[in-house]
Amino acid sequence: MKSDLPRLMQERGLDALAVIGPDGLGAANTAFTYFTGATHVTNGTIIVKRAGDNGSQSYLVHSPMERDEAAMTGLQLVSASDYKMPQIIQQCNGDRLAARVEFMRRLFGDLGVGGRVGFYGADSVGATFSFLSALSRAEFVDVATEYENDVISQARKTKDGDEVAQIRQACRLTESVIGETRDFLRRQRVSGDVLIKQDGAPLTIGDVKAFIRREEAAAGLDDPGCIFAIGRDAGVPHSSGTPSDTIRLGQTIVFDIFPRIPGGYYADITRTWCLGYASDEVQRAYALVMKVHDDIAAAFNTQRNTYEFQDMACDIFESHGHATIRQDLSVTSGFVHSLGHGFGLDIHEPPGMGLRGVRADEQMQRGSIITNEPGLYYPDKGYGIRVEDDYWCNPQGEFECLTSFDRSLVVPM
Amino acid sequence: MKSDLPRLMQERGLDALAVIGPDGLGAANTAFTYFTGATHVTNGTIIVKRAGDNGSQSYLVHSPMERDEAAMTGLQLVSASDYKMPQIIQQCNGDRLAARVEFMRRLFGDLGVGGRVGFYGADSVGATFSFLSALSRAEFVDVATEYENDVISQARKTKDGDEVAQIRQACRLTESVIGETRDFLRRQRVSGDVLIKQDGAPLTIGDVKAFIRREEAAAGLDDPGCIFAIGRDAGVPHSSGTPSDTIRLGQTIVFDIFPRIPGGYYADITRTWCLGYASDEVQRAYALVMKVHDDIAAAFNTQRNTYEFQDMACDIFESHGHATIRQDLSVTSGFVHSLGHGFGLDIHEPPGMGLRGVRADEQMQRGSIITNEPGLYYPDKGYGIRVEDDYWCNPQGEFECLTSFDRSLVVPM
Repeated sequence: MKSDLPRLMQERGLDALAVIGPDGLGAANTAFTYFTGATHVTNGTIIVKRAGDNGSQSYLVHSPMERDEAAMTGLQLVSASDYKMPQIIQQCNGDRLAARVEFMRRLFGDLGVGGRVGFYGADSVGATFSFLSALSRAEFVDVATEYENDVISQARKTKDGDEVAQIRQACRLTESVIGETRDFLRRQRVSGDVLIKQDGAPLTIGDVKAFIRREEAAAGLDDPGCIFAIGRDAGVPHSSGTPSDTIRLGQTIVFDIFPRIPGGYYADITRTWCLGYASDEVQRAYALVMKVHDDIAAAFNTQRNTYEFQDMACDIFESHGHATIRQDLSVTSGFVHSLGHGFGLDIHEPPGMGLRGVRADEQMQRGSIITNEPGLYYPDKGYGIRVEDDYWCNPQGEFECLTSFDRSLVVPM
Repeated sequence: MKSDLPRLMQERGLDALAVIGPDGLGAANTAFTYFTGATHVTNGTIIVKRAGDNGSQSYLVHSPMERDEAAMTGLQLVSASDYKMPQIIQQCNGDRLAARVEFMRRLFGDLGVGGRVGFYGADSVGATFSFLSALSRAEFVDVATEYENDVISQARKTKDGDEVAQIRQACRLTESVIGETRDFLRRQRVSGDVLIKQDGAPLTIGDVKAFIRREEAAAGLDDPGCIFAIGRDAGVPHSSGTPSDTIRLGQTIVFDIFPRIPGGYYADITRTWCLGYASDEVQRAYALVMKVHDDIAAAFNTQRNTYEFQDMACDIFESHGHATIRQDLSVTSGFVHSLGHGFGLDIHEPPGMGLRGVRADEQMQRGSIITNEPGLYYPDKGYGIRVEDDYWCNPQGEFECLTSFDRSLVVPM
């Protein structure tokens, strides 16, 4: 969590952090919004400077146009206009890259930043590589970057109470949208096996998604799109669903919804539904997915490597005759993805919970947020199943389930 | 536009482009979505290879879980699972960075990509710098990056017919939301100078924003947040508005709304309203802003440098006694920002239309999309004004206004 940063900086020999917040990436630049919160600052730089033994000072360099938003972050403010960029650009003969390096030189000088500085945030690949290469050559600071598991990612691996409260709220609001969506489906008329709208036309995936979007907006959630896929599409994990598909009884619907508090934290929940009835095969597969889901949830701990939970899931599925990606990475039928993943400001964050050897070995820890989402996929048989819930390892080391929406497969119509 | 890419690649001596599409940045990674369209591919790489004199071949390397979404892009597909990353990671002794370089070596070999390869897309600063540094050292391709105005940005400076159609649609939907919002305000009861909701409580900025969010969702638009700021807040250009503020007659409201087609193109429109009545001072300032707005729109052409339009605006404002950022970058009263900017998949794209010397000189051209948004800001006097419309330079070289929503200041109540 954020309070770990001074210690992590010390451990990694970093005198300061610089987090780049380019215009355009907005809430997607989560290393930046980790410091600014939900406030919308479109273009700025965060500087975190180690101070004393266990402290740090954080600054936000911002545009004067955004002084109100900047003030809401609670960071110490530096107005970029004080540096008169047009003059610097002129002094650099119009070379904007050289001017940005010069700006950093003056800024770091004024803030007393020197030594080894880690760079974070997200930006265009070309801008990043050109800028950090030029900054390295300028040699007034020692530019440090890490390929992954950097100091900010490391801090973000555990969530503090405020973050967990936001994730809880995202889960609660998301579950209310799931409930409204199920009610909406149940309100439709059925003709033969097909759901029919008031206007007499068949209800489509597109209609349902439009309903979900409106419900998310009403709940105050940002919608990055969701998966609402039926039948064969439900058998392809990330197929988001075909808008023109009609909704039929007895077919599996995979509903994977992952909205977030605007500019803030995600929830990530999946339910699989069969409207009216489900075939015996689907019921058996569903029961097995739920067995894996429950066994894994009961087994979660902070001692084992996360890949061991993936192994547990593969053991169970394989013992029941289902193929898994542990046997063959290219399988498209059976259990074909990772068991779960961390999330927070990003929808996928460390820790991972996939195959052994894909990531460095890692364990969950107090403060981890993780999904548990086993599934079985048979696109050729026209079905797919996934059930996903969210967990928090609390300060006592217990794994609390943050999601409780009804897990029944069959939705009575 | 995209069809310019083979020519641009040839001019810049690039044999191929690689566009990085990291998990997590989603629709914010617009260099990536430029090729994939609105389809949601969370993690992939685009390779564009020059082929023949004026052609190119484009590939999408994707996860097998996302094969359906990948197929919708129309790009030639390469399944990442064919490369068996866990095995490569094992061969690299668990070094995931080395494994990614090795993966690129094999991928480029299979696709016949060599020579000088430009890298694009957005990713975390640490991952980018570490990866491209390692790739440069590996020396199997010549890694090219540009700080800005790279080959993809250059192509995106002009929009083709399909892109303009999407921007037109975004504008049309956004204007319908603006209209619904004005109607919503007019429906409220007024007590004294304050708008009152049905439940008897004063209507707040927060209430209006919730209404706007729902309308955007109903219109099928993605909402990245909007500016709806009244009185003093309207006088700070990027103040998004204080949720608890009540809505009063006679105060300026700056309503700047910039949603997008999900995963696609933005609109960017601002209207300034005074409910019921406006003071003489505000009316005079508004008339001046509209004079600048109309003079600039009439003057738009492809011959002048874009900073000349900023100069024109500053000339008019200064001649009427208003301060401008041309005189002093740190002014917070008067005309305090750039006159306009390009947009498209990003809300701010080249060409810029700001102060001379801040960017390299540039002109608009056939296919440019640009905003025209003069404003006057007096936070200490409790008001701000901005009127923003969107223009397209069509194939005949004429500047078509894509936005036509009523520009009246006073909204009769």
